[in-house]
Amino acid sequence: MKRAIELAKKGWGRTNPNPLVGAVIVKDGKIISEGFHEVVGGSHAEVCAINNADTSVAGSTMYVNLEPCSHYGRTPPCVKAIIEAGIKKVVVAMIDPNPKVSGKGVNILKEAGVEVEVGVMEKEAKALNEIFINYVVNKKPFVIMKTAMTLDGKIATFTGSSKWITGTEARRYVHIIRDRVSAIMVGSNTVIKDNPFLTTRLENKEGKDPVRIIVDGKGIVPEDSNVFNSSSKAPAILATTLSIDKDKEKRLTEKGVKIIKTEGEHVDLKLLMDELYKINIDSILLEGGGTLNSYAISSKIVDKVMFFIAPKIVGGKNAVTPVEGCGIDKMEDALEIKNVSVKEFGNDILIEGYLEK
Amino acid sequence: MKRAIELAKKGWGRTNPNPLVGAVIVKDGKIISEGFHEVVGGSHAEVCAINNADTSVAGSTMYVNLEPCSHYGRTPPCVKAIIEAGIKKVVVAMIDPNPKVSGKGVNILKEAGVEVEVGVMEKEAKALNEIFINYVVNKKPFVIMKTAMTLDGKIATFTGSSKWITGTEARRYVHIIRDRVSAIMVGSNTVIKDNPFLTTRLENKEGKDPVRIIVDGKGIVPEDSNVFNSSSKAPAILATTLSIDKDKEKRLTEKGVKIIKTEGEHVDLKLLMDELYKINIDSILLEGGGTLNSYAISSKIVDKVMFFIAPKIVGGKNAVTPVEGCGIDKMEDALEIKNVSVKEFGNDILIEGYLEK
Repeated sequence: MKRAIELAKKGWGRTNPNPLVGAVIVKDGKIISEGFHEVVGGSHAEVCAINNADTSVAGSTMYVNLEPCSHYGRTPPCVKAIIEAGIKKVVVAMIDPNPKVSGKGVNILKEAGVEVEVGVMEKEAKALNEIFINYVVNKKPFVIMKTAMTLDGKIATFTGSSKWITGTEARRYVHIIRDRVSAIMVGSNTVIKDNPFLTTRLENKEGKDPVRIIVDGKGIVPEDSNVFNSSSKAPAILATTLSIDKDKEKRLTEKGVKIIKTEGEHVDLKLLMDELYKINIDSILLEGGGTLNSYAISSKIVDKVMFFIAPKIVGGKNAVTPVEGCGIDKMEDALEIKNVSVKEFGNDILIEGYLEK
Repeated sequence: MKRAIELAKKGWGRTNPNPLVGAVIVKDGKIISEGFHEVVGGSHAEVCAINNADTSVAGSTMYVNLEPCSHYGRTPPCVKAIIEAGIKKVVVAMIDPNPKVSGKGVNILKEAGVEVEVGVMEKEAKALNEIFINYVVNKKPFVIMKTAMTLDGKIATFTGSSKWITGTEARRYVHIIRDRVSAIMVGSNTVIKDNPFLTTRLENKEGKDPVRIIVDGKGIVPEDSNVFNSSSKAPAILATTLSIDKDKEKRLTEKGVKIIKTEGEHVDLKLLMDELYKINIDSILLEGGGTLNSYAISSKIVDKVMFFIAPKIVGGKNAVTPVEGCGIDKMEDALEIKNVSVKEFGNDILIEGYLEK
């Protein structure tokens, strides 16, 4: 199962909004074939593993980190392929979280006489597919709020200076995350101040740029910003309100920028998430400043937080902090982060965990 | 040597401004005696170990984490006792950092025909006595700035609410640190807002209260504050300026509060450190708010920082951060923290490290 999960990870950033799945076929104590879900629309891991086998898989055991599918989607159901191949036993890490199909695949296999075991490395399998699970269960994109701050909690000095807080290892890891998610989201301040491309730059392989989402309620981001004019194939989305200038909207649309508008003074982030879900965006890396981060948290759209902490001190009562806005009144009402883990990247420390929505 | 360092730690908070020293005597591959420096003015570890032996220590090997002393202080020199006891070999973790005596003890032993080995577990020995080394080399107290903040870098919400940020394990550890240092230092804001006792509360043994130092340039801390009126045996020191009201100064002095005054509008922290060194304060736990922390850092008196981070978010542009003041202008000029280590206390994370002065 460990190997199946490893294989599944090869699909990172390419299968969205599908799950990450790996499958391993074992016969007489030896791995005889492997497969993984490579790209959305492509063959499922189970079928790949069956097709990749050099010898007959009849009588073998398959290890797969997600319940095999039972329905005709872009591809025929995997349970059919498993039964037809004569596989004797299927070990599944977790049941499909989609309530519509959950457990059906296992039932069909059992009815066809295939032995099924469920729950092996379930925790790891659920962590691997946290984006997919959220997508099918909550029908929202999984939002990861990422920030980089000094040890004394500043994302910029009092003058706005912010380059660089963390070292190369931490920044490299952020690009790996960008490569895995469907979209990246920033606020108008970040675009105006830093004029970023918001693309993915990897060291060893070609990155996949995430869809770039700009939250800009007033429609003030300049049209010549890099994010609207880069050569990236990834679409740019401007999330704004009805107050945007009509001519500007038209010119941006002509450039290929998708405009999503919500009513009210500020962009309604909850509604925005609904719209993004509809266009298959299953995950968003939120690289906002203190204001957008605060707004995202109070809008309850954030699922996970990643705080990179650089071992340095800048001080400053007026320096920028990772979560600003008005803030919570009483310390006892602070939002708790669950399942916290700590990792080190060069000299920097990453603290990550989950918010309960 | 590991055992010697373990023994040395038994003196934590009781030997200041003396070093922590443990000694182990080994003969025929067996530990035949042990000793440690228990309390300032008491016997040194080497003499304790010799005196604690049930059998003759002649021909044995002594392991000690600091070079044995060669001078008559409160007690006769240890090298004399070692030579007279007929110890054959002395293994020393580190040379005495005091430039006046450094290496003399080892030389006297060698001249008397005792075999000497230096440098075993030197790194651990230096870490153990970081306070003592700073005290004798730099002739200043070792200042540890401790703060507790939320994951988003706040030590209080925008309303000032700050109880509690960290959990019981982290708070318990702070009391262990209070037990080890000579003094604790806070600013007037903390005394006015929280009215703390600044005493040591331990679970399993009686704590030793640190000297309580209040930095209060304007002399505005109320005379009925707990810190001036508790039953603690530890003295209270008010660090203030010439602007303090003379009658108030007199009344506080009558209560037993020691007043240290510096010229200028604010307390000159560098001068204060010189004064505290003179009264044998070798270490200070700075539990300041954002303003005092910032002032201490810009005054370059801070040696070590301890940031406890609670996995919670409060947000707030106007919430209090651990280091305030004006702050540094450019991110590239941020103060770097060296030798960073990460520990976990319950749900909280401690990041600690050292500042270069």
